[in-house]
Amino acid sequence: MSKPLIPALAQFVAATAGRNMTKAAYAAVTVGVLSMVLLTDNRAHEARGWVSGLLWTCLAYFVFEWLVRLRHMARQGRLSLYVSSSAGLVDAVGALAVPAALLLGVEPKTAWLLSVLWVLKVVPGIPGLRQLRRVLVLESGPLVSVLVIFLMVVFLASVAEYFLERDVQPQTFGSVPAALWWAVVTLTTTGYGDVVPITPLGRIVAAMVMISGLGVFGLWTGILATGFASETRRDNFLKTWESVSKVPFFAALGPSAIADVTHMLRTMELPARTMIIRKGAQGDCMYFIAAGEVEVDLPGKKVQLGEGAFFGEMALLGNNKRGANVSTTKVSRLLVLDLVDFRVLMARHPDLAETIDTEAKRRALENK
Amino acid sequence: MSKPLIPALAQFVAATAGRNMTKAAYAAVTVGVLSMVLLTDNRAHEARGWVSGLLWTCLAYFVFEWLVRLRHMARQGRLSLYVSSSAGLVDAVGALAVPAALLLGVEPKTAWLLSVLWVLKVVPGIPGLRQLRRVLVLESGPLVSVLVIFLMVVFLASVAEYFLERDVQPQTFGSVPAALWWAVVTLTTTGYGDVVPITPLGRIVAAMVMISGLGVFGLWTGILATGFASETRRDNFLKTWESVSKVPFFAALGPSAIADVTHMLRTMELPARTMIIRKGAQGDCMYFIAAGEVEVDLPGKKVQLGEGAFFGEMALLGNNKRGANVSTTKVSRLLVLDLVDFRVLMARHPDLAETIDTEAKRRALENK
Amino acid sequence: MSKPLIPALAQFVAATAGRNMTKAAYAAVTVGVLSMVLLTDNRAHEARGWVSGLLWTCLAYFVFEWLVRLRHMARQGRLSLYVSSSAGLVDAVGALAVPAALLLGVEPKTAWLLSVLWVLKVVPGIPGLRQLRRVLVLESGPLVSVLVIFLMVVFLASVAEYFLERDVQPQTFGSVPAALWWAVVTLTTTGYGDVVPITPLGRIVAAMVMISGLGVFGLWTGILATGFASETRRDNFLKTWESVSKVPFFAALGPSAIADVTHMLRTMELPARTMIIRKGAQGDCMYFIAAGEVEVDLPGKKVQLGEGAFFGEMALLGNNKRGANVSTTKVSRLLVLDLVDFRVLMARHPDLAETIDTEAKRRALENK
Amino acid sequence: MSKPLIPALAQFVAATAGRNMTKAAYAAVTVGVLSMVLLTDNRAHEARGWVSGLLWTCLAYFVFEWLVRLRHMARQGRLSLYVSSSAGLVDAVGALAVPAALLLGVEPKTAWLLSVLWVLKVVPGIPGLRQLRRVLVLESGPLVSVLVIFLMVVFLASVAEYFLERDVQPQTFGSVPAALWWAVVTLTTTGYGDVVPITPLGRIVAAMVMISGLGVFGLWTGILATGFASETRRDNFLKTWESVSKVPFFAALGPSAIADVTHMLRTMELPARTMIIRKGAQGDCMYFIAAGEVEVDLPGKKVQLGEGAFFGEMALLGNNKRGANVSTTKVSRLLVLDLVDFRVLMARHPDLAETIDTEAKRRALENK
Repeated sequence: MSKPLIPALAQFVAATAGRNMTKAAYAAVTVGVLSMVLLTDNRAHEARGWVSGLLWTCLAYFVFEWLVRLRHMARQGRLSLYVSSSAGLVDAVGALAVPAALLLGVEPKTAWLLSVLWVLKVVPGIPGLRQLRRVLVLESGPLVSVLVIFLMVVFLASVAEYFLERDVQPQTFGSVPAALWWAVVTLTTTGYGDVVPITPLGRIVAAMVMISGLGVFGLWTGILATGFASETRRDNFLKTWESVSKVPFFAALGPSAIADVTHMLRTMELPARTMIIRKGAQGDCMYFIAAGEVEVDLPGKKVQLGEGAFFGEMALLGNNKRGANVSTTKVSRLLVLDLVDFRVLMARHPDLAETIDTEAKRRALENK
Repeated sequence: MSKPLIPALAQFVAATAGRNMTKAAYAAVTVGVLSMVLLTDNRAHEARGWVSGLLWTCLAYFVFEWLVRLRHMARQGRLSLYVSSSAGLVDAVGALAVPAALLLGVEPKTAWLLSVLWVLKVVPGIPGLRQLRRVLVLESGPLVSVLVIFLMVVFLASVAEYFLERDVQPQTFGSVPAALWWAVVTLTTTGYGDVVPITPLGRIVAAMVMISGLGVFGLWTGILATGFASETRRDNFLKTWESVSKVPFFAALGPSAIADVTHMLRTMELPARTMIIRKGAQGDCMYFIAAGEVEVDLPGKKVQLGEGAFFGEMALLGNNKRGANVSTTKVSRLLVLDLVDFRVLMARHPDLAETIDTEAKRRALENK
Repeated sequence: MSKPLIPALAQFVAATAGRNMTKAAYAAVTVGVLSMVLLTDNRAHEARGWVSGLLWTCLAYFVFEWLVRLRHMARQGRLSLYVSSSAGLVDAVGALAVPAALLLGVEPKTAWLLSVLWVLKVVPGIPGLRQLRRVLVLESGPLVSVLVIFLMVVFLASVAEYFLERDVQPQTFGSVPAALWWAVVTLTTTGYGDVVPITPLGRIVAAMVMISGLGVFGLWTGILATGFASETRRDNFLKTWESVSKVPFFAALGPSAIADVTHMLRTMELPARTMIIRKGAQGDCMYFIAAGEVEVDLPGKKVQLGEGAFFGEMALLGNNKRGANVSTTKVSRLLVLDLVDFRVLMARHPDLAETIDTEAKRRALENK
Repeated sequence: MSKPLIPALAQFVAATAGRNMTKAAYAAVTVGVLSMVLLTDNRAHEARGWVSGLLWTCLAYFVFEWLVRLRHMARQGRLSLYVSSSAGLVDAVGALAVPAALLLGVEPKTAWLLSVLWVLKVVPGIPGLRQLRRVLVLESGPLVSVLVIFLMVVFLASVAEYFLERDVQPQTFGSVPAALWWAVVTLTTTGYGDVVPITPLGRIVAAMVMISGLGVFGLWTGILATGFASETRRDNFLKTWESVSKVPFFAALGPSAIADVTHMLRTMELPARTMIIRKGAQGDCMYFIAAGEVEVDLPGKKVQLGEGAFFGEMALLGNNKRGANVSTTKVSRLLVLDLVDFRVLMARHPDLAETIDTEAKRRALENK
């Protein structure tokens, strides 16, 4: 890594030490892992020099990042917390695994394989991972029991298969471990075909195993589907709740009304200068501004709408062609009210309907 | 393409230039792609003449269609819009890809492969595609995170497998790319069997990969199932909403009642002269006419029912054998009210129950 | 088939001509199909005589059954209806296919293969088939679009694969049809392994195909899961509705209450002399008698309960050990009220709670 | 098994005779099955002595356990009940299968295979198994019909395939049983690749079979997913119900309110000395103590909260950082109220909101 880069980098990394992942880190992970993959490919041996160069660069970056973070945390007195945190662990491993291996005299090609651990740095950045984890935790009960059933079937089936096939094909079904391998490959419906029963009875057992395979699949999915249904609802509610209370338009409503409004709205985070509504497009939802600002460009003038304002309601009141382009001017959080829910909401809370109606009329006149 | 055809075709295509796909276009796509497939099959080499004839015809058709559409759009001043639209792009590719390839001196057999792109013309015609897309968009968060997890497992597993198997089977597990191939084939439970671990440890890793495969499946499906549940409900609501308001029978209801009626009804688009109810059949729903007209043929006379009328209610009031044949006389949109929902609806809105009852009685007398 | 059997059989078949399937018919189908399977197996050639004997017997039975039914229907003047019905068709095919083939000089071993069509006779007897069909019909829209997407991926992938692999492995990827075969095998994640890409690019395409395979799976299942959720609810409601109204206990309730009671109850059809409640068992539901009769054997005496009565309520009121054995005396239809729903119901309709309470107390005293 | 152990063990087993599985039993099952697996592996032949030693030990343990249980049950006069119960059967088989086999002169290596039956002892210990079983029972209708359809497709497809392929590859498709094997392997999308159609027609049939495979998958999963959705809701309700009524805080509510509170709460069983809330963590739920006791360690003092008390409410009232560590002091059952449901609940029952608010204020002051 060329000298002048370092201070800049240090600064940069320090600035981002708080966040989990920086663009640079993503790039480093991608480049690093791909180079590692290439390194093992003999077809790419003439490029080996370049490749290991890249690997060393990435490693350097990660070591560097790690050190900067350590210092940063130390300053804030959160060092111990960071080191023991999963993020801290992953950083440490990413920085030390390969060098350690090299120092221990592992031959380079093998040592560099450890750089695959860098992918773990991506984990915290995965969207909706929290949600996945929650589902797995809440549904762990049935999931585990399915897994246990899975294992029992595997054991019983493999012993049966071993007993039925060992004499006919001793080389493939010569031991229960071999049969276990067959059972897993079959029950997951992977079916490599390297170990296949040939006796009639053996095949009947196999058929039953495959069908249970479908069953296991089904149960597994069924459980997860159930978990997700409830989880997504919950998630959306949490995201939306506090925004709603910030919108004066809804403040009028009683708490119970707010609760069910919240169930209807969907939150949307948008960067600045993003087109939200394109003129002439089909519209099937309206928007409330929870934070930020949007700009409606009407023929002749541009109108800014700030926190608490709403727009796009025209689409839900009769004419469903969007009348103007609307785009954000700063980072904004919008609440989307879908046509369906709009109808229901209006039905349940006529007063809201009026407010929107009058506002719509006012604008219509204004923009004459 | 024989001369006299052209004007007729031109007219025809022009007429349909607005619509996305014409029957002719569907035919052309089918014929074209199939011929392309045949062209590559050596068993069909004696039919080659015919086949390429067909291909040229289809190509001609698509070029022709494209030109007509361009002109049509140009006239309407929507040319730039059309050209930049996905439909316009697909048309252009369909018309130019093969000729371009031929001009660039690609050998014919290969050039014609590009005609597979014609299938893209079918996309806009797929029913419920919009719905699919919406689900994918709304659930993209968790879907992406599952994909990322999928990739991480693939990477970690393949490096592990490479490390464990490379010495035993250097030709198949000789590099991480090869191991990656194995990992994908395994994690998707495809299991070709061309690359199979044989060391005990390698097989244990493989087993874990397969089981995670089930997990990925499960998560994926769970997410999509959830998305669909809400999406279908929404979709149906939108389709039904405006029809409902058109039926005077429901107009009586307050807005909130309408909202939940809408949740109960299902819209049904029918061509003219379609049998809706067959005499003597089991009936478990009633119909409201949102648009069009139906004909009830009672013994002796035929009764027409127009917009806003309802029929089939007898089946829900006691006797569930259909009393007469009913069929559409023109293209009609019907709202179907299921027995289940009928009960609930009647329970919630006794007034509706009466209206239906009296009407039913009136008819019973009339048809005495 | 020995002579004396015939009259008896005729009578028997006639008696059951109305029903779709008789036990005898099930047996005949099973035996017939299995014998057909055996017939083709060379290991069983010494048993050939027996096997074809069985086949002829089954065939005779089906012909016989068919004739009896024809006569039966003819007498009732429903002949044409029957012949054109799917059941009639299946019967006809079952009776005529094999003989026809034999007469046309097809060699026996092949002709008998047609006896596999006998399995179609089972279709009408499949439980919950109606429900399956309804789901498929209602969800046909998205299902078809998934299928279309499936086919498009197959086409695009196979052409790409053909282009990439044809030079390296001309014998397997030598034509697009061959590549199509590969694509289907891969996209369904079946993965025979008879056709496998080996070029790096080819494998990348393949990997994408497999992942789309998961996607297709997921969509498919998601759609069906959604359909089922609503369908099962509907089904249960229909089954339960009329029974509920027959139970005086619920008659007291207003229509809207009945509607939501119906959503809570589950119907259960029981043959005579079936144990419903076992003394000492854990109880988590109570029963209402919609039709038939049950017998409670209390210490010393046996109490009969007829239509409209309820029992098992003790389990829901405090002590959840069943106090006595209860079994049906005749064929009965029971409505099961689950503990969960019991709580909710009692909460919503305190009057019901009282009725049950007082009755419970009365019985407690009585059985002192 | 060394002498002195026995009395201790006897006592221990007797003590636990009531429960289904003891830790010791789990260990014995694991060790036993693994040794059995090893026994069949030739690579482990030098360890054979050890392995069979272990096997004999486990066997001894199970025999011993069985006898102790028999005596225990006999004393309680529940002998016949136990023997006829599934648990009793499994115990008997586990104790007698192997010895019986050995006595009957089966060669040891084979006889010991029966020790795989020991895994059945794990069944009663599987979490959520009851739930799985209920789902399978309730949905059995559609599940069976899918299975029947599965079998019909298998039969029809295999006969078709046999007819199409028998002449080309007599060794693999030489008989319908062979074709059946192919059909099952294909329809479950296992695809070993040992039997693969090669004729064009055969491949088209195969493709259709694979696609139906996806369908079967989808239906199966759809059904199970549906079943689970309702089952989990029910399960949680049952677990929560009685706890709720024990919490004075909710006793205030009317029965209908209690019913819907119950739907919102989640029960959590915790061992003693378990950390529930970690200071500074993100909080998104509050807890009610249904049984047991927890300890809040505030700066300076530790506060005990007993049955009926609640904590963690601060997180739901504004500041969502946990203010103090909370951990159980004895085995406790907590009711978790999620942020989402908290909002809804508060909205529906303002009085509850107040109670919590005031309490929260009181504590805030107190802990000043």
